[in-house]
Amino acid sequence: MAECIFCKIVAGDIPCHKVYEDDHVLAFLDIGPLSHGHTLIVPKTHHPTLDQVPDDVAAACGAIVPRLARAILRATGATAWNLLQNNGPDAGQEVEHVHFHIIPRESDDNLGFRWHTKSLDSDAALNLKVAISDALR
Amino acid sequence: MAECIFCKIVAGDIPCHKVYEDDHVLAFLDIGPLSHGHTLIVPKTHHPTLDQVPDDVAAACGAIVPRLARAILRATGATAWNLLQNNGPDAGQEVEHVHFHIIPRESDDNLGFRWHTKSLDSDAALNLKVAISDALR
Repeated sequence: MAECIFCKIVAGDIPCHKVYEDDHVLAFLDIGPLSHGHTLIVPKTHHPTLDQVPDDVAAACGAIVPRLARAILRATGATAWNLLQNNGPDAGQEVEHVHFHIIPRESDDNLGFRWHTKSLDSDAALNLKVAISDALR
Repeated sequence: MAECIFCKIVAGDIPCHKVYEDDHVLAFLDIGPLSHGHTLIVPKTHHPTLDQVPDDVAAACGAIVPRLARAILRATGATAWNLLQNNGPDAGQEVEHVHFHIIPRESDDNLGFRWHTKSLDSDAALNLKVAISDALR
């Protein structure tokens, strides 16, 4: 993807503050951080959204998260952290190349997900469970 | 963990609306959904936070996300989705057993992360990059 900024970073054509790299993924500091230590993990191959990523690439992304998070917590002294990953403009995705945000958190940092829970209706839940299970097959 | 609600769900001692299960993970509908199709993925083994999860378990969690997300999108008709995972009370974690939220999204749904970006100072970034890279070793 010639025009993708994250592909250009992976290729080394745009610089980044790299913190980790292996065969499948690259991790670097977000240039618009939400908090000190905000880091992005991207697969090296181009996929617009995570639902389009092959299982092995998704596994490689998942596998590196705990180790990277431990390092970020140690380096920043943060007390908590979020893993956030946005797919599609309606979910807040800005760069159309899959990226995972590791966001260090502290008390009273004024970050977080807007959390408006509803209750799960039993009949709706049963229909939904069947629909998702069927779609998995 | 005798008192962990997600361990009890994994053990079958508390019912859930299960949508997927394999050797490593269980996925079920969130009973306090943020949106239609809000689903949780939990590793079957007990780990309080993702930074404490072994690499292979984290890989198994990561690997199932794309397939599950595709099924949820198909079942709900959502146009977008977030993967969110909270670690520690300061990050909004409520149940101390690692869980990944798959949150279907639509335009104007009034959800999303509170997004207050800062700029990344060059010197601070260099120090941070070195600190995280060192902590990874």
